[in-house]
Amino acid sequence: MIGGGQGAFIGAVHRIAAQLDGEYELVCGAFSSNPEKSKASGTLLGLAPERVYSSYKELFEKEKQLPEEERVQVISIVTPNHVHFEPAKLALESGFHVVLDKPMTFSLQEALELREVVEKSGKLFCLTHTYTGYPMVKEAKQLVASGKLGKIRKVYVEYPQGWLSKFEEGGDNKQASWRTDPSQSGIAGAMGDIGTHAFNLAEYVSGLEVTQLCADINVVVEGRQLDDDGAVLLKFNNGASGVLFATQVAAGEENNIKIRVYGEEGGLEWQQSDENTLLVKWLSKPAEIYRTGTGYVSSYAQHNSRTPAGHPEGYLEAFANLYRNFAQSVRAQIEGKEAKAESKDYPGVADGVRGMAFIEQVIASGKSDKKWIDFTI
Amino acid sequence: MIGGGQGAFIGAVHRIAAQLDGEYELVCGAFSSNPEKSKASGTLLGLAPERVYSSYKELFEKEKQLPEEERVQVISIVTPNHVHFEPAKLALESGFHVVLDKPMTFSLQEALELREVVEKSGKLFCLTHTYTGYPMVKEAKQLVASGKLGKIRKVYVEYPQGWLSKFEEGGDNKQASWRTDPSQSGIAGAMGDIGTHAFNLAEYVSGLEVTQLCADINVVVEGRQLDDDGAVLLKFNNGASGVLFATQVAAGEENNIKIRVYGEEGGLEWQQSDENTLLVKWLSKPAEIYRTGTGYVSSYAQHNSRTPAGHPEGYLEAFANLYRNFAQSVRAQIEGKEAKAESKDYPGVADGVRGMAFIEQVIASGKSDKKWIDFTI
Amino acid sequence: MIGGGQGAFIGAVHRIAAQLDGEYELVCGAFSSNPEKSKASGTLLGLAPERVYSSYKELFEKEKQLPEEERVQVISIVTPNHVHFEPAKLALESGFHVVLDKPMTFSLQEALELREVVEKSGKLFCLTHTYTGYPMVKEAKQLVASGKLGKIRKVYVEYPQGWLSKFEEGGDNKQASWRTDPSQSGIAGAMGDIGTHAFNLAEYVSGLEVTQLCADINVVVEGRQLDDDGAVLLKFNNGASGVLFATQVAAGEENNIKIRVYGEEGGLEWQQSDENTLLVKWLSKPAEIYRTGTGYVSSYAQHNSRTPAGHPEGYLEAFANLYRNFAQSVRAQIEGKEAKAESKDYPGVADGVRGMAFIEQVIASGKSDKKWIDFTI
Amino acid sequence: MIGGGQGAFIGAVHRIAAQLDGEYELVCGAFSSNPEKSKASGTLLGLAPERVYSSYKELFEKEKQLPEEERVQVISIVTPNHVHFEPAKLALESGFHVVLDKPMTFSLQEALELREVVEKSGKLFCLTHTYTGYPMVKEAKQLVASGKLGKIRKVYVEYPQGWLSKFEEGGDNKQASWRTDPSQSGIAGAMGDIGTHAFNLAEYVSGLEVTQLCADINVVVEGRQLDDDGAVLLKFNNGASGVLFATQVAAGEENNIKIRVYGEEGGLEWQQSDENTLLVKWLSKPAEIYRTGTGYVSSYAQHNSRTPAGHPEGYLEAFANLYRNFAQSVRAQIEGKEAKAESKDYPGVADGVRGMAFIEQVIASGKSDKKWIDFTI
Repeated sequence: MIGGGQGAFIGAVHRIAAQLDGEYELVCGAFSSNPEKSKASGTLLGLAPERVYSSYKELFEKEKQLPEEERVQVISIVTPNHVHFEPAKLALESGFHVVLDKPMTFSLQEALELREVVEKSGKLFCLTHTYTGYPMVKEAKQLVASGKLGKIRKVYVEYPQGWLSKFEEGGDNKQASWRTDPSQSGIAGAMGDIGTHAFNLAEYVSGLEVTQLCADINVVVEGRQLDDDGAVLLKFNNGASGVLFATQVAAGEENNIKIRVYGEEGGLEWQQSDENTLLVKWLSKPAEIYRTGTGYVSSYAQHNSRTPAGHPEGYLEAFANLYRNFAQSVRAQIEGKEAKAESKDYPGVADGVRGMAFIEQVIASGKSDKKWIDFTI
Repeated sequence: MIGGGQGAFIGAVHRIAAQLDGEYELVCGAFSSNPEKSKASGTLLGLAPERVYSSYKELFEKEKQLPEEERVQVISIVTPNHVHFEPAKLALESGFHVVLDKPMTFSLQEALELREVVEKSGKLFCLTHTYTGYPMVKEAKQLVASGKLGKIRKVYVEYPQGWLSKFEEGGDNKQASWRTDPSQSGIAGAMGDIGTHAFNLAEYVSGLEVTQLCADINVVVEGRQLDDDGAVLLKFNNGASGVLFATQVAAGEENNIKIRVYGEEGGLEWQQSDENTLLVKWLSKPAEIYRTGTGYVSSYAQHNSRTPAGHPEGYLEAFANLYRNFAQSVRAQIEGKEAKAESKDYPGVADGVRGMAFIEQVIASGKSDKKWIDFTI
Repeated sequence: MIGGGQGAFIGAVHRIAAQLDGEYELVCGAFSSNPEKSKASGTLLGLAPERVYSSYKELFEKEKQLPEEERVQVISIVTPNHVHFEPAKLALESGFHVVLDKPMTFSLQEALELREVVEKSGKLFCLTHTYTGYPMVKEAKQLVASGKLGKIRKVYVEYPQGWLSKFEEGGDNKQASWRTDPSQSGIAGAMGDIGTHAFNLAEYVSGLEVTQLCADINVVVEGRQLDDDGAVLLKFNNGASGVLFATQVAAGEENNIKIRVYGEEGGLEWQQSDENTLLVKWLSKPAEIYRTGTGYVSSYAQHNSRTPAGHPEGYLEAFANLYRNFAQSVRAQIEGKEAKAESKDYPGVADGVRGMAFIEQVIASGKSDKKWIDFTI
Repeated sequence: MIGGGQGAFIGAVHRIAAQLDGEYELVCGAFSSNPEKSKASGTLLGLAPERVYSSYKELFEKEKQLPEEERVQVISIVTPNHVHFEPAKLALESGFHVVLDKPMTFSLQEALELREVVEKSGKLFCLTHTYTGYPMVKEAKQLVASGKLGKIRKVYVEYPQGWLSKFEEGGDNKQASWRTDPSQSGIAGAMGDIGTHAFNLAEYVSGLEVTQLCADINVVVEGRQLDDDGAVLLKFNNGASGVLFATQVAAGEENNIKIRVYGEEGGLEWQQSDENTLLVKWLSKPAEIYRTGTGYVSSYAQHNSRTPAGHPEGYLEAFANLYRNFAQSVRAQIEGKEAKAESKDYPGVADGVRGMAFIEQVIASGKSDKKWIDFTI
């Protein structure tokens, strides 16, 4: 693991997600750019001292030299955005598979480069767009793909948060500080942090690609350096249209990412606050409630749950699904087999490139007087 | 009553709303432009035959001549949009108070004229933006006005319907036919029919005024003559921003108009599908559930309900609240008194003018390459 | 109208319910046992002074003598329980149809007598078990009757309220005072006031009859004279079992009467707080959401709604459905026709007799050491 | 681990729960009474072959002889009910801490013996009443304990399932087979499997003890050997009363255990289908929505969650909370320290004894003609 030392939120989440199904064991780490802190974190996590490294460079260097059966196989990178590209590139080039937190890189340029690195390396790469790991999000995608909703016409996706309603940065709130700092986060704040999740979810579930967008991007809290709010009109490649909004200043909201997709015959609705329910609405018959863990859901939904219906599986299980599917894919590659379609259904470098393009173009649109901006890569 | 003969949806709703509280008695009508049909409707409604008229002109003419204690006092106009302005103007000029269905007129120009007519006439005028009649919508407005949420930053309003997902017009579906016909509805379809409701709700609850907008307006169903879908980015006069969407092609949706407003300290959420609940969210304490009919709600919410908490009051009661408040205001005027503030809180000609401006400008924006259009009247 | 003068909750509700659909006109009344108060109420309601009576006896006496076309046709009785039997009997014997508030009488003995009076009179009789007037309760009954859920096994019904959590009686709270006073309410408090609603709903929806019961009846608030809480185990005539509870001391609860019925193949759930939704659950397919005002619901549900799906119809509409169905039945009788099955589906004297038997036996069971008591009439 | 081989539901759940927070490592097991199957399961789980044992007796024997730093510390027992007592007793007497699945034993007699064994052993013991591990269940208990709801008057608890609506036993459904077999489950079916969970939840949240009960116990599905349904009237030691029901034949229900508790000033409501929400209702102010992961909840709720509000934590996290708290308590004991109050808040042997008493007495009540049975141990 690169990053994720004491006090980091997402590092702990990655560790739980990885070990939840017993598919991974944490064997080494470079948990901080400060060697002392890295050591301290490694000790707390019970690692062998010789495998707690001072830097990711040292980690790759030393681990490469270990015998294959001891050597780490998958590198998780959970650093702030500006420390994504370099370690990911180096990890891949050093022969490791990589799990990387989103957004993929600091800039679209880096993303395009990383795509090439992944392709050349022959190694597997997973980008943790967590929400696509929920069983009912899988079901939503499968339902759209089945054609039962008819041709898709409308996509509404939203991600309201309230935790940046005040000026939180600059003090003890480490999360707030780096996420609002352009030198660590890049050109976007809310749009990079959560807008990319919403964008990815919209494309994943609908099976469509955004072709044009028109954005209203705001810095609501005085003194903040990056956007904390935005709304985007969308056009898709099949002629459908949509709305995306993401905000960190909706005081009182938690993390209720939500998507609605409508076709000619019906629509669907999923939201994280009721994570194990997929609401399916029909033009002229009763709406249906699809539920995680039931016998009637698709193989994709079943593959991504662990318990019978009614035992709620939450965020950590969704995250663990990414890790588990990635592990199954890595194992298949090692064994020279083809992984199951369900196992290969995890977000990858292509999602990362589109996410970075979204960030660049949504910020550009926010500054533009022109209504529609083409979404190009 | 003008319009609202057999088969008309909204005419029956107006009649129920008017008589629900026993404040009005239906005494005369011109229910159709076809005199035979008008007579037939009048008979069914149990009116005295001599007070069922062949045209609204005849109605005003004859009723004016009746002794004051027999004469109709309030005229309800429930015709399609292209027959709003003329009868409303004539009714006011003939000395009657007027209740008019929305959108107020066929064009902004007519709306501006009607505003003058109302002002000159000294008569009272109510425009039936029904949703502002719900007790919890009243509560929402009062809560924002109280300042407890802090300065307002975000307004999200939506009105998804699915009933025009197919090409319904041109056949037996009278509702679909006139609402999609530019000669009867004007320049807008969905934006006029339900977009104006969403717009009015946003301004009513937030207490703000839209100053700029940027719209994506679509005709989704092939062959349709007017927009059946749209999404609009909004800027408000206090610096807040927002999103409005209204669609009639969200297959499986009913009439779930919904509003969310966020300030610096908290937010609120109301939707018609849970009409007696106002969800109030706070930055750092538990969200609260405000309910119709309780003892702790504002005088405005209490004034607009009839039963103790837990006895749901629905759409017809919300509609009846408009009629009841209007009746109380009319009675106060007749008695030379000042009506209570709660009674005077019904939508009027100013709302109608803003609604017509919204229609004109949202359609203009939909056609424009420019991002932001100023909202001017 | 008998009773229902100023300050009475249920009298106003009856008046709204009756006039909502324009089927009834209030023409006369004896609104209070105090003639002054009766006059005052009549004046407020805009009645002709000569038809505001000092007593119900006078009302029946005088109205009988009016010409048939002027005479009142239907008598609504909305007095406390101890003044139900006498006026109802006299009204029927005087040739009027009767709408009576529940519980039907003061004792089972009176109920049995009233049943005979109704039968002899040839007049129609409606008991206002309001909840059976909701469209989705109609749908629930039809769904069970269709056999789609299979043989019914379990019935859970509950009616939690919180308004009597404190000692409210004896002061200004007129509602609390008479409902907790044995001389006005009879032998039961909560069980008579709301337990009978729950009991009626259970038998109505399930189409079953209770054959045995075992009750725990409590007076929770110190000093109260009648039960304010109870729970009852039930056995039904097809072998099904169930649970009923009703309480007035569940602090914070409003009026959330709720029923769940399960058969071999599926179950259903309805509750007043989400009045226009019927949740239908299936053993091995997705649950379905049935909604008021849609095209797919039964003729019974459609007959009992007024507006398209998504315009919530609430408590007053449910109440109005009883009045409207009763009006249609009365009109059919007058015209010598058979009323539609949907019109005849309103609660009557048989429901009232079973309700009074429930009261007597549930109170007896509460005092008994024996577990099961047979439900007999 | 004892039991929990391939195909066992609850064994896999225990393993996930134990390793989720990285507090436990699976080091040895006797996964089946069939040595071949035990070996196979151990291999699949990646254990060292020499630590996969043929029987639990062998496991305790061999592990005891290992050096302290290699030896297993905590034994998880996840066998059917009839194989709870013996291995638990032996584990404790062999010097291991024990985590045991519920219900604790096969009979009350065994439960009382096990209590003595635990006390004598000085070892720690955890019984996996999972639902008490949810953060919002912790919050509920703390809220009651704070006195804010006033004296508790009513407790309603329910656990509806539908998975045994048909005769599932005797075939491939291993879960159905052993849970309906008296030789493996004991004298109770549904009451033992889920009734005990409901009972434990009621006593845990309310802080009260049941003193009397009156039960209706049913075998609904023909041919079944044990109860699959029951409802129980309850009396508590402070004078409160309540209702408990548990059923496995509510077709269409999943696992929606739910509790409501009402005091003089307010009430609370929690259900597994909305696991991260605690609804708190007040007599005369708005209801409040308490949420997992927020800053305003008690130290108990905070201690039992891992992510910020809005990232749902589900069943596996609740289960993991039991394991984590137990680990913290074991570690404190080893280190000679006092564990935090929050860490010690896991279900133990006293809960197990009360659960077994509930089973014996609820079944006895079901067969009795007497209404109330004293709850005694």
